[in-house]
Amino acid sequence: LHATTVSILGERALIQRITSRLSQPSWVVVGPGDDAAVIEPERGALEVITADVQVEGVHFDRRFVPPDAIGHRALAVNLSDLAAMGASPRAALLSLVLPDTLEVEAIDGMLDGLLSLAARHRLSLVGGNIARSPGPLIVDVTATGAARPRRVLTRAGARPGDELWVTGTIGDAIVGLRSLQRGLDGPPRRLDAVAERRAHQCEQRYLRPEPRVRIGILLGRNRAASACMDLSDGLADGVRQIAEASGVGAVMDASSVPISEEARRWYECQGLDAIDACLAGGDDYELLFTVRPAHRARLRVVQKESGGVPITRIGIVSRERQVIVRDANGQRELPLGFEHFRRDIR
Amino acid sequence: LHATTVSILGERALIQRITSRLSQPSWVVVGPGDDAAVIEPERGALEVITADVQVEGVHFDRRFVPPDAIGHRALAVNLSDLAAMGASPRAALLSLVLPDTLEVEAIDGMLDGLLSLAARHRLSLVGGNIARSPGPLIVDVTATGAARPRRVLTRAGARPGDELWVTGTIGDAIVGLRSLQRGLDGPPRRLDAVAERRAHQCEQRYLRPEPRVRIGILLGRNRAASACMDLSDGLADGVRQIAEASGVGAVMDASSVPISEEARRWYECQGLDAIDACLAGGDDYELLFTVRPAHRARLRVVQKESGGVPITRIGIVSRERQVIVRDANGQRELPLGFEHFRRDIR
Repeated sequence: LHATTVSILGERALIQRITSRLSQPSWVVVGPGDDAAVIEPERGALEVITADVQVEGVHFDRRFVPPDAIGHRALAVNLSDLAAMGASPRAALLSLVLPDTLEVEAIDGMLDGLLSLAARHRLSLVGGNIARSPGPLIVDVTATGAARPRRVLTRAGARPGDELWVTGTIGDAIVGLRSLQRGLDGPPRRLDAVAERRAHQCEQRYLRPEPRVRIGILLGRNRAASACMDLSDGLADGVRQIAEASGVGAVMDASSVPISEEARRWYECQGLDAIDACLAGGDDYELLFTVRPAHRARLRVVQKESGGVPITRIGIVSRERQVIVRDANGQRELPLGFEHFRRDIR
Repeated sequence: LHATTVSILGERALIQRITSRLSQPSWVVVGPGDDAAVIEPERGALEVITADVQVEGVHFDRRFVPPDAIGHRALAVNLSDLAAMGASPRAALLSLVLPDTLEVEAIDGMLDGLLSLAARHRLSLVGGNIARSPGPLIVDVTATGAARPRRVLTRAGARPGDELWVTGTIGDAIVGLRSLQRGLDGPPRRLDAVAERRAHQCEQRYLRPEPRVRIGILLGRNRAASACMDLSDGLADGVRQIAEASGVGAVMDASSVPISEEARRWYECQGLDAIDACLAGGDDYELLFTVRPAHRARLRVVQKESGGVPITRIGIVSRERQVIVRDANGQRELPLGFEHFRRDIR
């Protein structure tokens, strides 16, 4: 008889096991299970808080992720969670768990990446703590943000007939990761200048993702979105999460999923289907959101103020509780997504 | 030429290296360097936030710290930080970094300890995240609390002539830790019933410390304390930290330091000086605070409402920037404290 261990149970079951034990007082507006928690400490002002831990060897590989990118990513994943709630970033705490052998220069580099991203989004690093560790490097960031009541975005507001939208392009980060991993394992790559530039662009998307803070705030402030989340775990996972939280389904149009030219060409060269790969991929930190047909004008306002980030309609919310992908060959149920926890570095 | 690594630099130098790069906007009332950060998101209401990471093998040893105590301690250290600021606990986030081989029962146990302490202090666990790890078990808790402007307690308000006070008793936790460690390494202990009970009491103080939440809130609300901090790193460290932050010194009366009968007897049996050991020890999570002589009446109000926790005067704040210990043999400068970072499990 074996004991049940963490590796057997998996992330979602573990989270479920924890959250099932929690009861929340009335001032907890959004508890566990969304991109971030929302509390209402004073009437009329919401506080949004989120924490995300990055573990070396699980979430990043120090052999090809430079220190500044580790710092950037550790904050970016939290900013992306705040953006997904429509919150304005405010303050952060940084917990560092450091191997004894880590060079101090690497810490400086992590701070460079973290602080320059923080400055761009007017977020202040106000505290934290440092511990040493016999294990891997761990960077745990907690971030808080502000939102107004009834302007906060959750995953649970989608209704049948709402349109499904995403920001930016999907899939680049995974291509970038694969490219970085190949540079590590394989022989030195020989690419022409165009392919080299393509690979570099995707690598940047993996190493230094730009959280969609401004669009998230605009979507909340203008009440343009009925549900929203960020795509840390991929588009397929995202659509399923919104559908589950809202008690609905969705029909996605495969041909409209915004895949960059760089990612599409990379998958072609590998002989892989770009759509399937991009549906399953992750680390994009784009926003997925739903919009009531009657609120299209609000979305146009958001689009005009969002500084040129593309927003693409990729499907529609349905009553039937399943997620369908339509393409030229017909329609099929969405392939089962991965669980982040089991997957490690993809 | 060797690169400077984490182990060479030490905790304080690392923290200094980070905080020297930070600039804080005006709404950051207390930045890094105190027990917790304080921000003023809305005029008139302060938010206190703190994070503390506990690493297996560094902050606790799973061979003699049971899961519920790991969970209790992980939250207690944060509650103690909030108490030291005079803040009322509100919400917490839990980041778990779990080895694959960890049994799910251990996670349940950690939650038992954490949630029962949270319930007693009316704090809600509102979110967090889980990651797997190839390394040690890591429990990182972020806690937020509320305080009113000008009621928040920092380390920086002590003035010459203020009295130096501590809550509870000092040194029990370290005795408890030593006792637990001995149970691990040595032959099975043979103690009489009295000694066994003494050891057990000290072990409980180490395993399940009671953060002084109520007294912290009372000290802040009644404006009884001019400076305050918690004794996570020991009394000697605490007095020095308040002295440094306030730009003052202190004279401590060794004979008045409240050492429990249990701890005193334990040190006697070891042939060690109890005062020196208790000054250098840590993990007590008592509060150290200073009181203006004119505010003694306020302190009496706190004492009356504090539910029987003893409060002891142990010295006085001085103008000369040094920390002096007076005992029957005369006076001496305080022995140099340890650095938590270098020390690991004491």
